[in-house]
Amino acid sequence: MKIHIINPNSTASMTDKIAAAARGIASPGTQIIATNPSGTPASIEGFADEAVSVPPLLDEIRNGTEAGADAFVVACFDDPGLNACREVTDRPVIGICEAAMMTASILAARFSVVTTLPRAIPIIEDLADHYGMGRRCRRVRSAEIPVLALEDEGDAAAQKVRAEVLKSVAEDGAEAVILGCAGMADLAAALTEEAGVPVIDGVIAATKMAEALAGLGLKTSKAGAYAFPRQK
Amino acid sequence: MKIHIINPNSTASMTDKIAAAARGIASPGTQIIATNPSGTPASIEGFADEAVSVPPLLDEIRNGTEAGADAFVVACFDDPGLNACREVTDRPVIGICEAAMMTASILAARFSVVTTLPRAIPIIEDLADHYGMGRRCRRVRSAEIPVLALEDEGDAAAQKVRAEVLKSVAEDGAEAVILGCAGMADLAAALTEEAGVPVIDGVIAATKMAEALAGLGLKTSKAGAYAFPRQK
Amino acid sequence: MKIHIINPNSTASMTDKIAAAARGIASPGTQIIATNPSGTPASIEGFADEAVSVPPLLDEIRNGTEAGADAFVVACFDDPGLNACREVTDRPVIGICEAAMMTASILAARFSVVTTLPRAIPIIEDLADHYGMGRRCRRVRSAEIPVLALEDEGDAAAQKVRAEVLKSVAEDGAEAVILGCAGMADLAAALTEEAGVPVIDGVIAATKMAEALAGLGLKTSKAGAYAFPRQK
Amino acid sequence: MKIHIINPNSTASMTDKIAAAARGIASPGTQIIATNPSGTPASIEGFADEAVSVPPLLDEIRNGTEAGADAFVVACFDDPGLNACREVTDRPVIGICEAAMMTASILAARFSVVTTLPRAIPIIEDLADHYGMGRRCRRVRSAEIPVLALEDEGDAAAQKVRAEVLKSVAEDGAEAVILGCAGMADLAAALTEEAGVPVIDGVIAATKMAEALAGLGLKTSKAGAYAFPRQK
Amino acid sequence: MKIHIINPNSTASMTDKIAAAARGIASPGTQIIATNPSGTPASIEGFADEAVSVPPLLDEIRNGTEAGADAFVVACFDDPGLNACREVTDRPVIGICEAAMMTASILAARFSVVTTLPRAIPIIEDLADHYGMGRRCRRVRSAEIPVLALEDEGDAAAQKVRAEVLKSVAEDGAEAVILGCAGMADLAAALTEEAGVPVIDGVIAATKMAEALAGLGLKTSKAGAYAFPRQK
Amino acid sequence: MKIHIINPNSTASMTDKIAAAARGIASPGTQIIATNPSGTPASIEGFADEAVSVPPLLDEIRNGTEAGADAFVVACFDDPGLNACREVTDRPVIGICEAAMMTASILAARFSVVTTLPRAIPIIEDLADHYGMGRRCRRVRSAEIPVLALEDEGDAAAQKVRAEVLKSVAEDGAEAVILGCAGMADLAAALTEEAGVPVIDGVIAATKMAEALAGLGLKTSKAGAYAFPRQK
Repeated sequence: MKIHIINPNSTASMTDKIAAAARGIASPGTQIIATNPSGTPASIEGFADEAVSVPPLLDEIRNGTEAGADAFVVACFDDPGLNACREVTDRPVIGICEAAMMTASILAARFSVVTTLPRAIPIIEDLADHYGMGRRCRRVRSAEIPVLALEDEGDAAAQKVRAEVLKSVAEDGAEAVILGCAGMADLAAALTEEAGVPVIDGVIAATKMAEALAGLGLKTSKAGAYAFPRQK
Repeated sequence: MKIHIINPNSTASMTDKIAAAARGIASPGTQIIATNPSGTPASIEGFADEAVSVPPLLDEIRNGTEAGADAFVVACFDDPGLNACREVTDRPVIGICEAAMMTASILAARFSVVTTLPRAIPIIEDLADHYGMGRRCRRVRSAEIPVLALEDEGDAAAQKVRAEVLKSVAEDGAEAVILGCAGMADLAAALTEEAGVPVIDGVIAATKMAEALAGLGLKTSKAGAYAFPRQK
Repeated sequence: MKIHIINPNSTASMTDKIAAAARGIASPGTQIIATNPSGTPASIEGFADEAVSVPPLLDEIRNGTEAGADAFVVACFDDPGLNACREVTDRPVIGICEAAMMTASILAARFSVVTTLPRAIPIIEDLADHYGMGRRCRRVRSAEIPVLALEDEGDAAAQKVRAEVLKSVAEDGAEAVILGCAGMADLAAALTEEAGVPVIDGVIAATKMAEALAGLGLKTSKAGAYAFPRQK
Repeated sequence: MKIHIINPNSTASMTDKIAAAARGIASPGTQIIATNPSGTPASIEGFADEAVSVPPLLDEIRNGTEAGADAFVVACFDDPGLNACREVTDRPVIGICEAAMMTASILAARFSVVTTLPRAIPIIEDLADHYGMGRRCRRVRSAEIPVLALEDEGDAAAQKVRAEVLKSVAEDGAEAVILGCAGMADLAAALTEEAGVPVIDGVIAATKMAEALAGLGLKTSKAGAYAFPRQK
Repeated sequence: MKIHIINPNSTASMTDKIAAAARGIASPGTQIIATNPSGTPASIEGFADEAVSVPPLLDEIRNGTEAGADAFVVACFDDPGLNACREVTDRPVIGICEAAMMTASILAARFSVVTTLPRAIPIIEDLADHYGMGRRCRRVRSAEIPVLALEDEGDAAAQKVRAEVLKSVAEDGAEAVILGCAGMADLAAALTEEAGVPVIDGVIAATKMAEALAGLGLKTSKAGAYAFPRQK
Repeated sequence: MKIHIINPNSTASMTDKIAAAARGIASPGTQIIATNPSGTPASIEGFADEAVSVPPLLDEIRNGTEAGADAFVVACFDDPGLNACREVTDRPVIGICEAAMMTASILAARFSVVTTLPRAIPIIEDLADHYGMGRRCRRVRSAEIPVLALEDEGDAAAQKVRAEVLKSVAEDGAEAVILGCAGMADLAAALTEEAGVPVIDGVIAATKMAEALAGLGLKTSKAGAYAFPRQK
């Protein structure tokens, strides 16, 4: 089985980290392909960064489909272009925010999200609403760090994430915490231990869900909203 | 990996059909254990049937946990006792309605559900609301058959299900159709072919999701609503 | 008129307190029957406790119907098994959370709820959502006491409840406060006086609503979700 | 106990019919006072009719409070001025749409409403939303009759209401039907018999709920939205 | 083009302030007519004040229509009688809360509202819900001042409003702030500068929207809920 | 005042029609600039077409800002890239679906939308939900025509739109109808006349709203979600 994970930004070190996290969790027999387009922003921090990353992301999806991917993961927590991706392939496509929230809602009655910059808070809140999370999503918190700070040496950024994870449990009544950026994939295991609740990384969650979807043998519906784009 | 699927009713032929469907889709290395309690109703058709099936279901969960199950599937489309199950084990527990709706919402923008008796319609509508499906769930339809008609020889019941699946696509704008009873697991593949859209069986969907959850290595949160029951 | 109040747990002293509260408010001519099943948990603290209490609760409903009850009250604030109860009788059945929230929404534009253990918070929030309370329900607070602490001598538990009631008014903008446990029925009157807003006990509210429903002469609909369970 | 029912329109024959319905259901010991203001429209059919009826309605509430009413019913299905009424008295005030919907949601999982003119449909839909009825309210239907047709001799209007009640059950999956006009109070009993489901009149439902609220001894909260109007 | 702004209370100094604000923003060629009824409360602080102001407001609308107004603004932040106003004229009618919230939702992803008295908080929250603002409306805050304090000499009231505006940005994550009272129209410009986010006054927003609606040449629909009142 | 309308697809004849519609409604003193990017799809029919049109749309917004536009209209009914547009300029940006729905909700209590292809139905339903339209949006209908059919000679496409508009009124209870494609701008006036209810074109509605927003002098908030993209 071939799971193709696309990091929509152009920072290869982040793609590597994502790939490592996915490979660490993948089933035997699963091949993880992790790519990123070139020419997209170095990080995706807001709607405009999302917008310019989506057309190259669609090309990755099309190329990946031809190359035989069984399912795709879009590895940016804003789930940019998810619906468009579903149009251009018949393989299942899952977003890491979507996967993380589904997973959290199975493991816990209430969760919080810890993301990077404050400007992502309304974006993620809107995603939680769109995914029907309602009261399950207690709060979206920001660690007040830019995305690429997670690529820096040292653990200053990680410490800020950790602090917000612990506050989620102590102040929000969160029974699980979601890490709201693909660049946090390496932090989940240690924080789960320390916080005493499931700390869920979307890359990991989405990798397993992509395996599940590919294993189901079902394809993205081509009967309506996700039909292939019309030729003009 | 050991996935324990519990059919909460006491009809062993249905448990066998469920087990076969799950084994047909399970990954190599996954052991499917399928059980049903004794003493529960022969089929679960309404809130009272659900209620009396839950305590024996909890016993199955407890026993399965001791026996080393890595994740559980509750294989009745009403998702009876799902929250209670999550209290009595730390392994992930997923319901087949929950799994089917999550899967449908990844593969299609709009879906309908085809269930057995009309009395199940409000139950499943309420589940769709609880899972945040909103407009994604176009309509819940009834094939006007009792659950156990699906165990009969002949295909009279299957034909009624088929008719409603086809109407879902033609009349509701459904881009995928969910089979709303664990006893329909054997119908999904042929109907997917005929209807031209994904026809999703909850047992199959939940089996793959359970593998994914078990593979994640995360446990049900014990920090709040799903903490183990208090000793008194 | 005969109102049958069922305390689903097995703590007789709590049943007695509930009976006393109901009798103190019942109309002349109303006979209050208060029972509890045996074999259920001593207190209901979470989904699993609910689950095991429901089958005996259904037996109480069936027996009470035969004995001529005109309406039923389920006297646990989680409203366990309410839909199932409605299936097994044609007499009106009301839950104490349901009754309290309806009453609060008539007397005040915004209310808070004070319950026992923190694990009940998501349960009651979900009930508020299910009953359509929306913004009317400002907050669900926990007094951080187990249910049976309310049966202890001394007023330690009552003082904790009192503190949260007063904070509801001062901090939440609550215009009324609901006591979120059947074991708090004896506290409502004094707290109403002290807090200066209606402090609503569900047992009392449900008793009056049950009288109203019985007086209406209407029965639980048997046309759909609440039809009697099918014989198999 | 003194229940004061106010018909906000100025048609005395309708007030008489309302009073008769209420007296037919009232408990022994309950005194029903039924009044209507003068100078308001002969019937309330839309927002403007509502608006001009509210100030005289508030006067009735104030006078009724001085005269010792224990609770009030506003007997127009649009529930006009309900919040304002709650400001000018400390006695409980209930609307007939509110009471009917609460009652229906206890007796049935799904209901429809049959009202008079089509223009009332969005008004009642918005009330259903405001009261949090969600999917419980299947459909609001119009019998396409003006309100005062219900006061005519002959049963032409009643037959049109009857037809829509029967269609609610047959086509909407309604398990109960609400009569959406105070002028239909005399039709409920016969239609309940014929339709085989509870057919709920708001006047009757509100009368019993008003008795319940008065019996509770609780008052409308004066702590926030329903505080008495400020003197200026 | 003639825009008729109606202040539903009877305080002429407030009408003057409203007129000045509107004239300051109106397009060349727009004639601003600003009136208030007599006999209504000096300020509108709650549901009962609203209720008694609406019938005279409807008279103003009718008179204004005859006098050739092209569109109407109802200049009280509770949007009293808005639906009724739409019934009695075929010219577009807009409320200042409605206009301010629409404007805010175009200019910002999240906003807070600063109003006068605490009792207005639930009223405005309910309006935000009715207008579908969902999470866009972060919080409704009260400056704890009566409406007419805004007419006093000195800036004590203005300072309290200012403090809440600044807290909206600092504490709520508001990206814009709405001034929740027609009497605050003169404060918006300076607060926009100081707060560094759009501070939106409803009178100003509604004046521009009324021009837009009048310029569209479309009329209020007379096909359903806003049909002219029926003659009786 | 300079209003810049951007048709995100690359069909110049459609841009011309949009410009003509806008100029027909613009205030004296308003300069309408209508452009379309090159290299985008000839029509926008689905998520992928949207996605590839957004980056060139953002360039148009940036260029328009430098050229002194006072406000922007995005003239595609899917409102593609609206949030991203708001990030890259401080001028107000409005979408034509957003403007049409706001306008409809002022002029009517219930509306339907008539769009081109069936695949747009879920897209527009999701927009209606996002804009908080709730029950106001009765139904989204498709005329079953591709977007560019509206550019053909002859009135075959227009007749199909007309048929759905009339059905919206007759079958849905729509009190207004929105034309759900920028290419329908020339049909609105005649259909308003024939249908007897407001038939609202988004280009026209957005043009007037853009004038209003520009006239307000307020800018897009740069405090949160719509802050300028971060330099990296």
